[in-house]
Amino acid sequence: MLFFTQCFGAVLDLIHLRFQHYKAKRVFSAAGQLVCVVNPTHSLKYAPTRCAAGQTSAEQGVLPPCHHHEAVHDPQLVPCTCPLFSCPWEGHLEVVVSHLRQTHRINILQGAEIVFLATDMHLPAPTDWIIMHSCLGHQFLLVLRKQEKYEGHPQFFATMMLIGTPTQADNFTYRLELNRNQRRLKWEATPRSVLECVDSVISDGDCLVLNTSLAQLFSDNGSLAIGIAITTSKVHNAEDEM
Amino acid sequence: MLFFTQCFGAVLDLIHLRFQHYKAKRVFSAAGQLVCVVNPTHSLKYAPTRCAAGQTSAEQGVLPPCHHHEAVHDPQLVPCTCPLFSCPWEGHLEVVVSHLRQTHRINILQGAEIVFLATDMHLPAPTDWIIMHSCLGHQFLLVLRKQEKYEGHPQFFATMMLIGTPTQADNFTYRLELNRNQRRLKWEATPRSVLECVDSVISDGDCLVLNTSLAQLFSDNGSLAIGIAITTSKVHNAEDEM
Repeated sequence: MLFFTQCFGAVLDLIHLRFQHYKAKRVFSAAGQLVCVVNPTHSLKYAPTRCAAGQTSAEQGVLPPCHHHEAVHDPQLVPCTCPLFSCPWEGHLEVVVSHLRQTHRINILQGAEIVFLATDMHLPAPTDWIIMHSCLGHQFLLVLRKQEKYEGHPQFFATMMLIGTPTQADNFTYRLELNRNQRRLKWEATPRSVLECVDSVISDGDCLVLNTSLAQLFSDNGSLAIGIAITTSKVHNAEDEM
Repeated sequence: MLFFTQCFGAVLDLIHLRFQHYKAKRVFSAAGQLVCVVNPTHSLKYAPTRCAAGQTSAEQGVLPPCHHHEAVHDPQLVPCTCPLFSCPWEGHLEVVVSHLRQTHRINILQGAEIVFLATDMHLPAPTDWIIMHSCLGHQFLLVLRKQEKYEGHPQFFATMMLIGTPTQADNFTYRLELNRNQRRLKWEATPRSVLECVDSVISDGDCLVLNTSLAQLFSDNGSLAIGIAITTSKVHNAEDEM
């Protein structure tokens, strides 16, 4: 009996995912973009139990500054860049992608333009939606985070980081685009390097920021579709002065 | 002596304005857009002294719902749409523009694409920057507001309203664009009618919203340049499906 209930649940999940995928394809079909359904992960790195006892209530939602390993023996080794877990791994930059895929099960997508479909936007903060994006010979980490910077007022923060050095990151421009209900919001910026830490980018607010009300206007049945495009900076610079 | 001091002050103000105008022109010169320097006005409509005594501190920054005149004798008359003052004026929609110009000294600019240069972004909330924009045979009201939705955390809200009916407003799309420091943020939406009240649009968050940190990244020496463009909705609909 339990087996049949589980099978039925799995079939329902598949139908639900297929339906979301179909809806996102309908919205973004004109551009023929690849749609990736991304499920949320409740961040274990900054769970409320980890908050310092003396912290004020207004600060509870604020993430602590980036925590790098205290004893890195080889300066060429980098710590794990996964925003979800406090992971003791360290290794060379070239193997960060395989670590993220194998240990943290983060999916990787190919293509210059993709659509990131984040499901279950209603889940409480802190929650992260994460994928890797392979494009123009490099890999990027896209992070969408729901977080309470001000207690009781969750916001969504989206940014893209290059899995590479800050110098390499300066060669690219990423664009995040929301488009629904006769509203369109576009954010374009130079990606940061994962070595700079996603938490500090989000706490600085140097990313796409959405209030809950605006996220609801752009979401469809609890899912938020974000169009992503990456270009080399030369194209961006030519257009830069409007 | 006082006369000379005042003259010197006026000359300094002129030089400062000219310098700001020059800087904005430099940024937006490629498109040959008209730059309008807009000075802030501390909103008298919702000054702290008007807050109800029983209001909680968390709600103090939240504006009350739109206050329409209780006794409008003629249904064709509309109340004053100026977001800055509680004004007892009422009249026909056709004369709202001349009322805003003459009584509230709100400037009006011509042109399909203009640059709104809001000065003194550091001033405390609540503060409004307002102009009217004449384009495609209609007049629009652009409102940039600094407001504390969450106590101690001011945000900037920018929206465009048609000085016309909601049905007329549906024929247009407005775009607000910020572009500086290798970052670009674009917001596109259908303007609301001034009859719908700017305060409710801002409290719903259905507009361009900027945290202070992001506003600082986009501002130059305390001034924020917002590129504005208005098109008819047909153009927007054709592009709508990305």
